[in-house]
Amino acid sequence: MKNNHGANLHQLSETLGINENQIIDFSSNINPFGLSPKGLKKLKDNLQLASIYPDPDYIELKASISSYCNCNSENIVLGSGATELISSTIKIISPKDTLLLSPAYSEYENELIKVGSKITKFFYEKENNFQINIDHLISFISSNCFDMIIICNPNNPTGTLISVEDLEKIYLNFKKPIMIDETYIEFTDSSKTSAINLVNKYDKFIVIRGTSKFFSTPGIRLGYSIVSKGEILDSLNIIPNLWNINIFASLMGEAMFKDYDFINMCHNDFNENFNLLFKGLKNFKEFKVYNSNSNFILCEILSSRFDANNLYNYLSKKGIIIRKAQSFDKLNEKFFRVCVLTKENINLLLKEIEGFIREY
Amino acid sequence: MKNNHGANLHQLSETLGINENQIIDFSSNINPFGLSPKGLKKLKDNLQLASIYPDPDYIELKASISSYCNCNSENIVLGSGATELISSTIKIISPKDTLLLSPAYSEYENELIKVGSKITKFFYEKENNFQINIDHLISFISSNCFDMIIICNPNNPTGTLISVEDLEKIYLNFKKPIMIDETYIEFTDSSKTSAINLVNKYDKFIVIRGTSKFFSTPGIRLGYSIVSKGEILDSLNIIPNLWNINIFASLMGEAMFKDYDFINMCHNDFNENFNLLFKGLKNFKEFKVYNSNSNFILCEILSSRFDANNLYNYLSKKGIIIRKAQSFDKLNEKFFRVCVLTKENINLLLKEIEGFIREY
Repeated sequence: MKNNHGANLHQLSETLGINENQIIDFSSNINPFGLSPKGLKKLKDNLQLASIYPDPDYIELKASISSYCNCNSENIVLGSGATELISSTIKIISPKDTLLLSPAYSEYENELIKVGSKITKFFYEKENNFQINIDHLISFISSNCFDMIIICNPNNPTGTLISVEDLEKIYLNFKKPIMIDETYIEFTDSSKTSAINLVNKYDKFIVIRGTSKFFSTPGIRLGYSIVSKGEILDSLNIIPNLWNINIFASLMGEAMFKDYDFINMCHNDFNENFNLLFKGLKNFKEFKVYNSNSNFILCEILSSRFDANNLYNYLSKKGIIIRKAQSFDKLNEKFFRVCVLTKENINLLLKEIEGFIREY
Repeated sequence: MKNNHGANLHQLSETLGINENQIIDFSSNINPFGLSPKGLKKLKDNLQLASIYPDPDYIELKASISSYCNCNSENIVLGSGATELISSTIKIISPKDTLLLSPAYSEYENELIKVGSKITKFFYEKENNFQINIDHLISFISSNCFDMIIICNPNNPTGTLISVEDLEKIYLNFKKPIMIDETYIEFTDSSKTSAINLVNKYDKFIVIRGTSKFFSTPGIRLGYSIVSKGEILDSLNIIPNLWNINIFASLMGEAMFKDYDFINMCHNDFNENFNLLFKGLKNFKEFKVYNSNSNFILCEILSSRFDANNLYNYLSKKGIIIRKAQSFDKLNEKFFRVCVLTKENINLLLKEIEGFIREY
């Protein structure tokens, strides 16, 4: 297995002997509402366009993102998933000394190692319920000499959200490139939480977003960055890979960012389901459930009788996949992460966890 | 315009005021038979899979390519179009001194410049009807110290084909990496002309192929390399970009490489249409038409009354796009390239050229 990004459903399906689409995947953090109907329709109506090259400038796709994000088209850079953008941004900035808020998605560290960056971690600490003390963080930044700061916001796997005001404070005490991964920002009220406005206001902000999670489209590999005007944007625009978005991803993108019926429906149902999952998990006295500003919830097993491996193994035999979190910095085999799926799946998860606790 | 790879139909459509799908594109070398019906069906039946991550190992896709190319799955590397594979291969080999058979597709040179390679060109010469004298080439290789040789076979834009026997001779006198771009090989009898067998026999062959041209799928961005076992393959396999093939490209690929009804139909009709275009162009005494082993034909305008710009401008007003070839090394404004489309479109092209010559 070449990666450990959530579940490899293809392999699991073989291992478990369960059909891939019968696996209930609480590990990949994908919105369970499926595809935008307008995105899907545009795709269906245009399958024949496989036989033409994509517009190398992706004008229509960028216009759609621009209107969705309330940003300028000229600030947008497209990538084959957020993963490609994380890689190209780190390569272009090539920081000697990077501050990484941790624990975090493993790709930041992988890419930093490739460019030989020294990595300093500032931790969301368990003792502080994984919240950040911004004054401590700023004082730490000021007493060091970092070239770049990387923040996943809200953070995976802790669900921690840093406010725009605090991000601005960090920038004003740093004034060098800050990369903010907003893969999960659409599970918050992004009009108030997104750093996109800071991109226009300041020089060195890179906001990275993917469509895999909120728009449930990991298959199409479509990510985008909104980048402050200047050297970083210019370098990112020297096309690393001509036509890096395929025509189907482009077509879906053009339509789905404008599909407000779908977007609003996702927002409404999400809040209700989040509460169902959060309260359900809290009811187990064996778990400590951490607050989350995202579509996943980090839990710690307090009981000494079992750990996340036991729970994972039990649930996976029933076709339910959770994310063991011990590969994350400073988390151990007592931690696991689950995301918000449908009401039906959440109720099933809670019921199976109850069964596990009773049996174990 | 950020690229000059054939026509940017999106821009042309605006400039010409003609709907994109009404432009007859003789410049992009795309097989006019459209999409593989089996590929299209598999896609249509599985659109919902946009909501899952692609298999990071692409096992089913590689199996399909393996059977189509009669090669081992372990030798296959996938890329977002041949363009990405050209880039990653050159980056990994990072040659100090490269021999490039020219004129050729501009991306080889662009990528070689990025890694700081010295570039030496060995020309398909007009005086020799763009054929290569293999003994001269081998003697030139032996008296120099190249780290890599790049050959597009059949070559774009000359249509020149170097036989497998000659490729083997070149290797035996070189024994260092040879990258062969076989983007157009399927327009020949590839069972006899492809270098894939040399990949198994020798150490340092990289055969690159795309699906844009023969399978008419430039929109899906699917390319693949077949690479000799060893260091180069190992380096290419250290995933440069996780999930670089999106799920739709993967699905179409899985089915279309096995769609032998479609593949055979393309081969049969292609030969007939090639002859129609070739003979038709030969009938104009104003042109010298060069032999081609591919789906495009290079022509030189012998008349002093006009050049390729005049012809291009005349035809483009009628929605017909040809490729002016003066951006290629040692070709000038007298050269143009046209590809084999349908019988109907070829007849239209010939009629319009006749009109042009009469009027001009």
